[in-house]
Amino acid sequence: MQEKLDQLKAILAEVYDLSSAAALLGWDQQTYMPSAGAEGRGHQIATLEKIAHNKFTSDQVGQLIEDLVADLKQLDPDSDDACLIKVSDREYKKQTRVTSEWVENFARETTIAHQVWEKARSENNFAGFQPNLERIFELRREYSAFFVPYEHVYDPILDDFEPGLKTADVQEIFKTLRPQQVELIKAISEKPQVDDSFLRGEFDDRKQWDFGVSVITAFGYDWNRGRQDRAAHPFTESNGRDDVRITTRIYPDELTAGMFSSMHEAGHALYELGVDHALARSPLASGASLALHESQSRMYENLLGRSMPFWEFYYPRLQDTFPAQLGNVSLEDFYRGINKVEPSLIRVEADEATYNLHVMLRLELEIALMERSLEVKDLPEAWNAKMEQFLGVTPPNDADGVLQDVHWSSGLIGYFSTYALGNLISLQLWELIQQDIPNLPDQVRKGQFGELLEWLRRKVHRHGAKYEPQDLIMRITGSKIDPVPYMRYLNNKYSQIYEL
Amino acid sequence: MQEKLDQLKAILAEVYDLSSAAALLGWDQQTYMPSAGAEGRGHQIATLEKIAHNKFTSDQVGQLIEDLVADLKQLDPDSDDACLIKVSDREYKKQTRVTSEWVENFARETTIAHQVWEKARSENNFAGFQPNLERIFELRREYSAFFVPYEHVYDPILDDFEPGLKTADVQEIFKTLRPQQVELIKAISEKPQVDDSFLRGEFDDRKQWDFGVSVITAFGYDWNRGRQDRAAHPFTESNGRDDVRITTRIYPDELTAGMFSSMHEAGHALYELGVDHALARSPLASGASLALHESQSRMYENLLGRSMPFWEFYYPRLQDTFPAQLGNVSLEDFYRGINKVEPSLIRVEADEATYNLHVMLRLELEIALMERSLEVKDLPEAWNAKMEQFLGVTPPNDADGVLQDVHWSSGLIGYFSTYALGNLISLQLWELIQQDIPNLPDQVRKGQFGELLEWLRRKVHRHGAKYEPQDLIMRITGSKIDPVPYMRYLNNKYSQIYEL
Repeated sequence: MQEKLDQLKAILAEVYDLSSAAALLGWDQQTYMPSAGAEGRGHQIATLEKIAHNKFTSDQVGQLIEDLVADLKQLDPDSDDACLIKVSDREYKKQTRVTSEWVENFARETTIAHQVWEKARSENNFAGFQPNLERIFELRREYSAFFVPYEHVYDPILDDFEPGLKTADVQEIFKTLRPQQVELIKAISEKPQVDDSFLRGEFDDRKQWDFGVSVITAFGYDWNRGRQDRAAHPFTESNGRDDVRITTRIYPDELTAGMFSSMHEAGHALYELGVDHALARSPLASGASLALHESQSRMYENLLGRSMPFWEFYYPRLQDTFPAQLGNVSLEDFYRGINKVEPSLIRVEADEATYNLHVMLRLELEIALMERSLEVKDLPEAWNAKMEQFLGVTPPNDADGVLQDVHWSSGLIGYFSTYALGNLISLQLWELIQQDIPNLPDQVRKGQFGELLEWLRRKVHRHGAKYEPQDLIMRITGSKIDPVPYMRYLNNKYSQIYEL
Repeated sequence: MQEKLDQLKAILAEVYDLSSAAALLGWDQQTYMPSAGAEGRGHQIATLEKIAHNKFTSDQVGQLIEDLVADLKQLDPDSDDACLIKVSDREYKKQTRVTSEWVENFARETTIAHQVWEKARSENNFAGFQPNLERIFELRREYSAFFVPYEHVYDPILDDFEPGLKTADVQEIFKTLRPQQVELIKAISEKPQVDDSFLRGEFDDRKQWDFGVSVITAFGYDWNRGRQDRAAHPFTESNGRDDVRITTRIYPDELTAGMFSSMHEAGHALYELGVDHALARSPLASGASLALHESQSRMYENLLGRSMPFWEFYYPRLQDTFPAQLGNVSLEDFYRGINKVEPSLIRVEADEATYNLHVMLRLELEIALMERSLEVKDLPEAWNAKMEQFLGVTPPNDADGVLQDVHWSSGLIGYFSTYALGNLISLQLWELIQQDIPNLPDQVRKGQFGELLEWLRRKVHRHGAKYEPQDLIMRITGSKIDPVPYMRYLNNKYSQIYEL
């Protein structure tokens, strides 16, 4: 058994190398690549992904996994090796359904589409992106077809991001959540609005950058194992256990987007950097799922970064950084300002109370596009109609509407709902953390985040992708994904801010 | 035949994708990678190079090449396809002698060694790098052993950089060249030294950067197809036909290193960017050899960048950039200053008259190390002794001596002599260019470099690696590598500057 395990691990390590090389090429494409390089980059990424796919889905790997699964009972089911075999088995069964031609086409299409999307967004021209997006959804439907029979055409692609979760599960969770969020927003809208005008003005790019860096350094982000760069749409890239990079975007005329983006991506990076080194160069060497990932990023961005204890420590520092702009703004006013609830156009800048509605909108549109009850050409209209219906606002142009997010151009369909699920999980974890570290608010008031990170590493990070996400959540919290803690948090927080 | 050719091209395109992905990983390692990422990066590059090697050296490729070579007479021998078959045949025969284990070990060792070298150089500690360098030379000897019988143990590794050239050829060329260079330097040393003190002082980093950018933009470097970053040791990285990047390093207290480095690397990049697009994603999609490459970089750096016509145009602009430092320095004094001849420690900063001696030193040491007539532990002493013998200077420390160059840490043994050969070729080409573009000096005096680039593209660049370098030089100049034009150039130039 050990020999076969070693053989499997050696192959998986090469697959990991190929995938992480492709990830670095993707990082480069979104940060430093010259524009004319897109076509060549498309070929490179497609080739790497095809070879990784072929290597992993070979008959040799299939036979090794089959033999190892047969001997699985010899192992502690929670051991690294047992988990590796189970995860590989699951992934092998998925991937062998997909042809290498599809993988290659998809990689090439999405690489080209990404460049087209950037241009289309900058020119506010959906029509320029439409043919690419049509091909991407066509490819995604072809992908689901590999998994016939399924309950829902959306299930196979959701499963890629949230293994084990079904479309019906998400719809059920959102059905509970949506009316409560809408009710909260309605209650807030009937109260006097808070003032956040001081967050706009002239904010030196370099000072914003440095402030964000000081915060995420305090969070525990290790600059020997990571770096921060600029990208149109911030993201985290894991290039292996000791190289996990984040990106951010800073606006010279707005204070919050850059710093919260850095905190958010740092949350993702801390997760990846916290995976047990014993899992390196294996499919277990990453977060358990996107929702788990988002629970970490949203925790750092919101549960810390938009909390009063955090700003009790950092606000005097921020005032020192921008004395002209913030010198006369009280901590309380600043706190209310950064937590202002207002239906708006851009998901990544949405407040905590409205954020999930942006996600629900995308989920419904994606399901409709996958079902073909909506055509891509009608997407801008459908987007705008739903924005009006869910949030009461209509984008003035497609750049601030349907073209705002990078995901579809990268082929990431089935991804968005994980953002909202991550919010829910973050509160399930946060309530536990409050029990285990009762004086966490005092620590945060001193700018100390070490015990929190230690808790997250022990309970969440170190496991990597050993357990299925629903299983991991159950192991940690004793519950499935549950919207109640999140609504409790929102209601408490905004009742105080808006005196509901 | 067409079917087999298409099959071969499809495989070669994937090999190209893998190699160019590895090149990007290497670029990243030397520009932006967090320090702790070195180990993972070593695995990634090793895996990519191993797969590329295995793919290219497969029996399938061998059979395709054998069949195509048999039908070669059907093709015009200068056609792209015929050249592709010939180059692939030659390369296949070479690579199939080398085991994939060696390729993997070499990639891993050199990736780690690069990081170790950076640390050793910064700490001026050769001993820290010695074990890595020993392993690299051991691996290089193992490499040569795959090619037994050979005339000389150094031949197989020289052939990697300068296909077809033998150690004895280089030794013969250098035997002619060395006494002439030594004689020139001696004559210069007997004349009053020129003043270049105005080149040291405080020179704003950003202004240096921008000036360099303005020059290489005028040379014709296309920023949609390239970019410039900083690296400890400047280099050019070709990531495909439309993404060729350069790096530079700028000193805040010295004016010339940064700008000449940018011009030098731009010369390399223009070569790669000028390769015929029809050769994309094939082994022909790069320069013909390192010496040819160096002929281009040295032409832009020296034959243009250190020439009087060039500075007749650019010196007023440079004075405007640094009025306090250069306002009172005449064009003639500046020209003499940047062409000052003085034996010095650092190869990349050496003047044109002494440069080749740095190369000859390295060649002799490499040959001795390969022959084992010198051991790595004795290298610093041998380096310093030869510096004294060739140039009359002794490095005060290893950082400015044996540790100065990146090449050995990257496994690039056999590389250095191509720098000197490139100088020689650059003058063989330059004399032709003077005939074909008689008013080139007038164009350069107006900052116009288009016709020069067009000539280089037509005569040199577009051919890529279609022809063996010695063949290409013969096709263009009607001669083999010849030191006479270079010595004629040096003697003319310095007779004027030093009034010999």
